[in-house]
Amino acid sequence: MALVVQKYGGTSVADLDRIANVARKVIRTKEEGNEVVVVLSAMAGETDRLIGLAQKATDTPDGREYDALISTGEQVTVALLAMMLNGMGHPARSFLSFQARILTDNAFKKARIQSVDTTLIRDEIEKGTIVVVAGFQGVDSENNITTLGRGGSDTSAVALAASLNADVCDIYTDVDGVYTTDPNICGKARRLDRITYDEMLEMARAGAKVLHPRSVELAKKYDVRVYVKSSFTDEGGTLVTREGEGMEKEAVSGVTYDKDQAKITVVRVPDRPGVAARLFMPLSEHNIIVDMIIQNASIQGYTDLTFTVSRKDIREATRIVSDVIKEVGAEKIEVDDNVAKVSIIGVGMISHSGVAARMFAALAQEGINIMMISTSEIKVSCVVEAKYAELAVTVLHDAFSLEKAR
Amino acid sequence: MALVVQKYGGTSVADLDRIANVARKVIRTKEEGNEVVVVLSAMAGETDRLIGLAQKATDTPDGREYDALISTGEQVTVALLAMMLNGMGHPARSFLSFQARILTDNAFKKARIQSVDTTLIRDEIEKGTIVVVAGFQGVDSENNITTLGRGGSDTSAVALAASLNADVCDIYTDVDGVYTTDPNICGKARRLDRITYDEMLEMARAGAKVLHPRSVELAKKYDVRVYVKSSFTDEGGTLVTREGEGMEKEAVSGVTYDKDQAKITVVRVPDRPGVAARLFMPLSEHNIIVDMIIQNASIQGYTDLTFTVSRKDIREATRIVSDVIKEVGAEKIEVDDNVAKVSIIGVGMISHSGVAARMFAALAQEGINIMMISTSEIKVSCVVEAKYAELAVTVLHDAFSLEKAR
Repeated sequence: MALVVQKYGGTSVADLDRIANVARKVIRTKEEGNEVVVVLSAMAGETDRLIGLAQKATDTPDGREYDALISTGEQVTVALLAMMLNGMGHPARSFLSFQARILTDNAFKKARIQSVDTTLIRDEIEKGTIVVVAGFQGVDSENNITTLGRGGSDTSAVALAASLNADVCDIYTDVDGVYTTDPNICGKARRLDRITYDEMLEMARAGAKVLHPRSVELAKKYDVRVYVKSSFTDEGGTLVTREGEGMEKEAVSGVTYDKDQAKITVVRVPDRPGVAARLFMPLSEHNIIVDMIIQNASIQGYTDLTFTVSRKDIREATRIVSDVIKEVGAEKIEVDDNVAKVSIIGVGMISHSGVAARMFAALAQEGINIMMISTSEIKVSCVVEAKYAELAVTVLHDAFSLEKAR
Repeated sequence: MALVVQKYGGTSVADLDRIANVARKVIRTKEEGNEVVVVLSAMAGETDRLIGLAQKATDTPDGREYDALISTGEQVTVALLAMMLNGMGHPARSFLSFQARILTDNAFKKARIQSVDTTLIRDEIEKGTIVVVAGFQGVDSENNITTLGRGGSDTSAVALAASLNADVCDIYTDVDGVYTTDPNICGKARRLDRITYDEMLEMARAGAKVLHPRSVELAKKYDVRVYVKSSFTDEGGTLVTREGEGMEKEAVSGVTYDKDQAKITVVRVPDRPGVAARLFMPLSEHNIIVDMIIQNASIQGYTDLTFTVSRKDIREATRIVSDVIKEVGAEKIEVDDNVAKVSIIGVGMISHSGVAARMFAALAQEGINIMMISTSEIKVSCVVEAKYAELAVTVLHDAFSLEKAR
């Protein structure tokens, strides 16, 4: 008998018919001899509706009240699923965060899970009850409701799977797994049967939308086997797991792209200690997430420093950095919001020489100019002109023959 | 400095504009030097929408899950009001039932409040915070969410006022107070400045919809001064309080009617011990609420027994009683669902002789036949043909000169 945690996203519980569909999948898993803990998101669109109410209510909604408001979406879906399962003759019980004791810090709207007290959930599982837990929410040490931010329900599911020492954490979504690249722009994209945590993490960070990076980090930390599946078919699926498990090391396993990028170059920055901190601290204070940062070796005491941010933040970032360059004595800034990031990802990359070179060559052959390069142990990212994003993906998918299963 | 509990119903928080209106009323009360605890219902229509979801989800929704579902309506309104108040510069904090520790029994859908631990609420009040509590909901001893049934938010407000030893409990609704009778059917209806708990209780039970009887019972038990006010005007209001408080004893203070009545007469019931119990036990087991019960003195060992039920229950009640009459040896039953109950209410009634006689005479003068009579210390109720209900109300209002303030 296996203990299975299953998470269903907003499109999977968008209406009563789809929740009934979830109920049937859950019952089937139970009848196959498993113990089942279900984690649900809110109905698709409901969280956005509630956020809209908060934004109309006041310009700067208090974080505590904001979280109390938007956490109602998950409360509705877990209660509906639990009553449906009961109605179908399968004892079920919903757990809200204060009942499941999902303890977080008190950073409202982006809380981090600290612990899950699984005593009550285990009691119910042992009685044969199907446990249905509200995703996305927690409580802080003072019993205030918190929410986990974007991707929160995935994180809830993985945290529960880790705390319960579950055999697997199934993440049901509207695609049937993780692909070598976006099938919408590359017809040859191939579904991967397996992928490592690190690869999944880089793919998620580099723009693939299947799993939120936070949930992958947590899965890696606690060694939770995550299975990405479609809630609409029984086919396919991708297992996210640690290296090894009978996996061939592929040099490159996926290509991602992210068009939500804008870059700022600070020209002729004096190369003194503390300059970078003075640039990036105020950005961080304004909650602007900086993605890539490139600084070349300095020449005659000056360097150029380039970084990318999300396109929506470019105006604020420009304003902030403009204020700082006078202080630090840089010459000027140059802004380009017409760029995209294209990345190749693969855990086998370090042991295969020449992967980066092949990437650059493939792009060059199509006349795609590379503006920035950044590498990690399992990733090479290039910033290119936005209009080349789709072409670059297709070219790289071909260059590494990703359509072929290995 | 007074401690004021204010309760706003569903129509008062029906949308963001109305919630903003509530926020302004609350701030005004605070700025007049009071400490304020606010209790809210769900937005008008929201609880019914959630009940609709539950009914479509399954035929017999599990009570625990049903309550978890429908309690989200109040969670939304308290969070919205609290964030608005904070946005307007007045520190406010929402409390859900699990946070306010509103402890109930575990009778889902109709739970009864057992205690309120006001420690946390008092702490916030002392800091100058406006406390906003979700009405209608509680938690049982195992931290399951419960709801209090119809009229639940009024009951929450009175329970909080009692626990906090508040100076007054304002119930804001869509009418500006308690009237001598329904102003829609009697143009001379007059708003009462004051009314006793007992009168209010009888008026509520006898069909007036302003306050739920449960909340009045609780107010009486803990001597909570309840002020019924309109959330749309600052005029008017009726204070519900104990006898005395400088109140003139009026023989009759109000006339009520209830058209949701049907009567069943069991003909020639053998006058033996236990017969009434055998009739009414099965009705109670089917949750059918019996209102009036009349049994005449028996003649030659037989009596007729008549009772009234809500019109929606008449078919089931008829079926149940038909089964029983064979057992008890009664002759037959007669059903009439075309009746109404008209009542006069007044705490001064016992000390004024002839009140009932004046009622019967007034009805007789208009040719209205009285089918059943029932009296309590502060009420006389008559069942009449349904078509006479409005006429009877107007006639009685005139007969006791209720249009004149005393």
